[in-house]
Amino acid sequence: MKALVYHGPGQKAWEEIPDPTIQAPTDVVVQVDTTTICGSDLHILKGDVPAVKPGRVLGHEAVGTITQIGDAVTTLAVGDRVIVSCIKSCGKCSFCKTGIYSHCLGDEGASGMGWIFGHLIDGTQAEYVRVPYAENSVYKVPAGVPDDHAIMLSDILPTGFEIGVLYGQVKPGDVVAVVGTGPVGLAAIMTAGLQGAARIIAIDLDANRREQAHKFGATHDVDPRAADWKQQVLALTDGLGVDVAIEAVGVPATFGTCVDIVRPGGNIANVGVHGAPVELPIQNLWIHNINISMGLVNTNTLSMLLNLVAEKKLPVDLMATHYFTLDQMMEAYDTFARAAETKALKVILTRS
Amino acid sequence: MKALVYHGPGQKAWEEIPDPTIQAPTDVVVQVDTTTICGSDLHILKGDVPAVKPGRVLGHEAVGTITQIGDAVTTLAVGDRVIVSCIKSCGKCSFCKTGIYSHCLGDEGASGMGWIFGHLIDGTQAEYVRVPYAENSVYKVPAGVPDDHAIMLSDILPTGFEIGVLYGQVKPGDVVAVVGTGPVGLAAIMTAGLQGAARIIAIDLDANRREQAHKFGATHDVDPRAADWKQQVLALTDGLGVDVAIEAVGVPATFGTCVDIVRPGGNIANVGVHGAPVELPIQNLWIHNINISMGLVNTNTLSMLLNLVAEKKLPVDLMATHYFTLDQMMEAYDTFARAAETKALKVILTRS
Amino acid sequence: MKALVYHGPGQKAWEEIPDPTIQAPTDVVVQVDTTTICGSDLHILKGDVPAVKPGRVLGHEAVGTITQIGDAVTTLAVGDRVIVSCIKSCGKCSFCKTGIYSHCLGDEGASGMGWIFGHLIDGTQAEYVRVPYAENSVYKVPAGVPDDHAIMLSDILPTGFEIGVLYGQVKPGDVVAVVGTGPVGLAAIMTAGLQGAARIIAIDLDANRREQAHKFGATHDVDPRAADWKQQVLALTDGLGVDVAIEAVGVPATFGTCVDIVRPGGNIANVGVHGAPVELPIQNLWIHNINISMGLVNTNTLSMLLNLVAEKKLPVDLMATHYFTLDQMMEAYDTFARAAETKALKVILTRS
Amino acid sequence: MKALVYHGPGQKAWEEIPDPTIQAPTDVVVQVDTTTICGSDLHILKGDVPAVKPGRVLGHEAVGTITQIGDAVTTLAVGDRVIVSCIKSCGKCSFCKTGIYSHCLGDEGASGMGWIFGHLIDGTQAEYVRVPYAENSVYKVPAGVPDDHAIMLSDILPTGFEIGVLYGQVKPGDVVAVVGTGPVGLAAIMTAGLQGAARIIAIDLDANRREQAHKFGATHDVDPRAADWKQQVLALTDGLGVDVAIEAVGVPATFGTCVDIVRPGGNIANVGVHGAPVELPIQNLWIHNINISMGLVNTNTLSMLLNLVAEKKLPVDLMATHYFTLDQMMEAYDTFARAAETKALKVILTRS
Repeated sequence: MKALVYHGPGQKAWEEIPDPTIQAPTDVVVQVDTTTICGSDLHILKGDVPAVKPGRVLGHEAVGTITQIGDAVTTLAVGDRVIVSCIKSCGKCSFCKTGIYSHCLGDEGASGMGWIFGHLIDGTQAEYVRVPYAENSVYKVPAGVPDDHAIMLSDILPTGFEIGVLYGQVKPGDVVAVVGTGPVGLAAIMTAGLQGAARIIAIDLDANRREQAHKFGATHDVDPRAADWKQQVLALTDGLGVDVAIEAVGVPATFGTCVDIVRPGGNIANVGVHGAPVELPIQNLWIHNINISMGLVNTNTLSMLLNLVAEKKLPVDLMATHYFTLDQMMEAYDTFARAAETKALKVILTRS
Repeated sequence: MKALVYHGPGQKAWEEIPDPTIQAPTDVVVQVDTTTICGSDLHILKGDVPAVKPGRVLGHEAVGTITQIGDAVTTLAVGDRVIVSCIKSCGKCSFCKTGIYSHCLGDEGASGMGWIFGHLIDGTQAEYVRVPYAENSVYKVPAGVPDDHAIMLSDILPTGFEIGVLYGQVKPGDVVAVVGTGPVGLAAIMTAGLQGAARIIAIDLDANRREQAHKFGATHDVDPRAADWKQQVLALTDGLGVDVAIEAVGVPATFGTCVDIVRPGGNIANVGVHGAPVELPIQNLWIHNINISMGLVNTNTLSMLLNLVAEKKLPVDLMATHYFTLDQMMEAYDTFARAAETKALKVILTRS
Repeated sequence: MKALVYHGPGQKAWEEIPDPTIQAPTDVVVQVDTTTICGSDLHILKGDVPAVKPGRVLGHEAVGTITQIGDAVTTLAVGDRVIVSCIKSCGKCSFCKTGIYSHCLGDEGASGMGWIFGHLIDGTQAEYVRVPYAENSVYKVPAGVPDDHAIMLSDILPTGFEIGVLYGQVKPGDVVAVVGTGPVGLAAIMTAGLQGAARIIAIDLDANRREQAHKFGATHDVDPRAADWKQQVLALTDGLGVDVAIEAVGVPATFGTCVDIVRPGGNIANVGVHGAPVELPIQNLWIHNINISMGLVNTNTLSMLLNLVAEKKLPVDLMATHYFTLDQMMEAYDTFARAAETKALKVILTRS
Repeated sequence: MKALVYHGPGQKAWEEIPDPTIQAPTDVVVQVDTTTICGSDLHILKGDVPAVKPGRVLGHEAVGTITQIGDAVTTLAVGDRVIVSCIKSCGKCSFCKTGIYSHCLGDEGASGMGWIFGHLIDGTQAEYVRVPYAENSVYKVPAGVPDDHAIMLSDILPTGFEIGVLYGQVKPGDVVAVVGTGPVGLAAIMTAGLQGAARIIAIDLDANRREQAHKFGATHDVDPRAADWKQQVLALTDGLGVDVAIEAVGVPATFGTCVDIVRPGGNIANVGVHGAPVELPIQNLWIHNINISMGLVNTNTLSMLLNLVAEKKLPVDLMATHYFTLDQMMEAYDTFARAAETKALKVILTRS
């Protein structure tokens, strides 16, 4: 088959490799009908994720069709159309039993790490992918949900909801600020209403993105370069700060933005992937009764969010901005890597 | 009356000042029968808390007898024996209605700050103290609970429980580490069992304190200077780390200790009062699904904890190590300030 | 002033009585600008609520203007435009401190009963009303919220949300059935989305009401007289039943409807006011892991819901169907009593 | 092998039947080293559970040694010493993923029913038992936990904790009443402290049992035949009733006892297995803001409780009152069936 293979920092190729096969009775093999590219794929290509070794097929998001099943698989069948979660779940370890699939102790890839596709085992930017622990790691797609909606459930939508909205403890009536309105920030904006957010403030340097954010559910937006940006945010609250500040960029400055605007008793939910430490002004914060959460997505809400997508309760259709075939993988990477210029949110790659 | 008056950094005196009087219909005046000294009083004396102005009576913990009541007070009477909470609560602002008394918006002292005694208004290290918002800020002492048990409810016991155990989300079966076993750390140790902790590990540099911690409920102790201290802690877990790490010192090193030992999906509950920022290694932590909480006590569990003390379910009697009369205030401060040497936990000052 | 006075079963009059006055320092007197009639007023008039004695002014919902304040009131002023909650809250008892205002232990009316207006003290169907514990029992109306929206916050909207949606533990993705689509059922329908309900099924005998329910947020409706009504409901779930069944009528048959359709692990939230026992088939239910909740509204979400109304997030404007002046009180009662015929939901009475 | 086979109402025999074998790749076979008898086994023998067909091996509790494993089993090995949960869990259905194993949708036994051993498939009162979905249905026994402690984890301890204490929402400081102090009531008493119960009141007709209850953790006991029994209970509260009433018998009278003593805002947790409906006086209760829970155990706390047993935090050793060998099965049944006379709590049957 053809696959996007990593060959070390800055090196990748869409090339022929052997087809994946069933290796354990709980595996399935999925023909990839639709995949996409994530910001973390770009990080890997920069060499920022040393756990990814040359020769690895990248990608951790897919919608596809099951072509082979292992002997222990009883609830899936060849021909089933499924979403592949970006997180494996063995379904039987202490983490999986409490919904923390992100730290699944199953041996596939690595015990204690749920993200294995395109990281510790071969991923989804390929014509076929082997999925371990399949019955807990793939989800059947209801009729009526197209691939380019379903693909958002692999990672982006659960990440925004679980790590932004749920970890941030958004509750009815809350004022929520989302700092950074890339795909994951938009996913948080899109799902904050599920927990009853009253106001959703999009904070982003990019005017186009701030404007787009309103289509996803933002009720207000603020340019963080404005001299009075903080006053603008506080004016949208009772003056004391936002109930929940969601960090969706991953740099110290945006983390600091969250610290600046959160109210006493409020929450900072870090969704961004960071490459450097942040300085926490705990000499001021300790008395503010705030809570700081962070994490890798569990995708334990995937099924629930999928139902809402099927009900057309979430505007996932706005997320896909560019379409390619799998063969155009290199071109798709290029478009996605230049997102500021191409205005790409999610690029969609389909079988044909 | 006599009171301990702050006269600027390093300066204090037990001196005569005018008696407090009722200033609002919701006030009471309490004759102080028992008070104590808190680590934060020492911080104030060092000049670390500039909001405290010279002339201020210090102290925020007391058990006493009501001597005057305001016109709007209906549920308290002259002669009632009460605990004065270290935190005022107006009972009617948005924070008080949701239990966050620490940020009470009532005007007394300062809107948005629950800790006012010995900080923004005159405190409890005196023969009498005026208590604003009295019906929400004092608690009747049940018969059979002596003053030197009841005084622990003013601050120390709720702080350990609320900010350590509850904010730390301790749940049945958890392995909990408490870093720092001064009074507040011991209060966390003493109350962790209320949420079902299976193991409670006391971590402290002081061998005597580690040993004492067992009397308060610690099941294990670790010396953080041991070369293999981290391995010792992990060996008391399933190898992945503690469920909850409670920071009860307030310096970067002990915060770092908590970061080192918390498991994926676990909680760091900061109880310590910090004077400097900490560096948060979020480039590693973001993927660990941990939660960091912090805060000033609300004392919204004071009444519940008082019931447990009355039931003799908590070993509060172990907390008082030295006894003085109010007139010996200066001597008591001296003993408490040299705690490492005197082995003082809480010093008790009584009317006579 | 003029007021609607109860004179025993079947007897009422809009008549002249003395104006209310301040009786405690925590009281205010409110000029009633807008009031309404509740189903429970009709129950009282039938003689079903013996605690209501002849001579009592009825009504427990109002929006008005403060005309007098007690000496202890600091956060309200004469001239403030406020919503009067149907539930008093002293703000200082153990129930009020935990948000259970419905069982407020304050002495006004009766200790342990939050509903006192038009029940145990004079109510709001009058030109003026005395409000005890005013700072915890009235809520300032934001500019831009008209009286006929604000009045829905006194009782109906918090009742549907707190006792239906919150007690029913509605969570994102849930299928919720509301049995009975009178005002309180519609309030539950209107607010179920705040907790992320995916599907909201309106079940009512009346075809007009079922149709109306869609405007309030119902996604589906079912006629309980259809032979296959239960199959219709189950077909809107995964076949196992609804996650939450909200009873909003108050008779054994509708409670039984809820029992019939709730899934294993689901919730029945009883909102209806019952006059007779129900038979609970616990020989079947014990193994179904269901939960049954019930209660009088606390109005502890009033302020939050008011913010959402100010944000125009809830279609409260649809609730008011008929308008009268206070002088037309008797006519308004007649219209409301014949709701099946007049299609009245809430009738609005205004000062002029 | 030998097994206890049900031959219709009133008929059972300890007789030779074929050994169980692996039927699915996720199965294991366990040699039963220790088993016990549950009250529900007696119900089955009375013919009260028609789903149990003649020929069925009874029993749903066991500690044993794995003798065979299926091809998909990777985390268990032949020779492992394990507890068999009374509830199967497939680990991959929507119920299992949210911890509601009691309604596991896996096909073994019946989809939607977690209790299958000695009910829908052959059970544990035998020399060997086949365990489906083994990796989610058995739990390795830590060294140092003897069989007669471990066996309490199969059913009784999780039932008391999950359905009594957790479903009852016991929280720190609560007054908890347990109505009925048979094994399951005692298990609730034993575990209520894990959620911080301040007082635990044992209510039982039998004086011996009330006395025994104190050894398990009861702080008070009340004889429900005393004329002033209700006053006795209320006197142990603040006068308003218990926070949580746990029903552990399963008849209308004891359910009514719970209704009588629960406070406004409190919880009734039904653990008892009922054979007849109860009349719910909802005309009085609707306004009391109470919550009624019920259910079959999930055993999703089994692992946590096992850790606490290993830590010797729970007095499980008091539960086993009589010891037999497997060959003495008929005699053990006789002793257990005459519990009032023999004072049997749990009878233990061991391999030899």
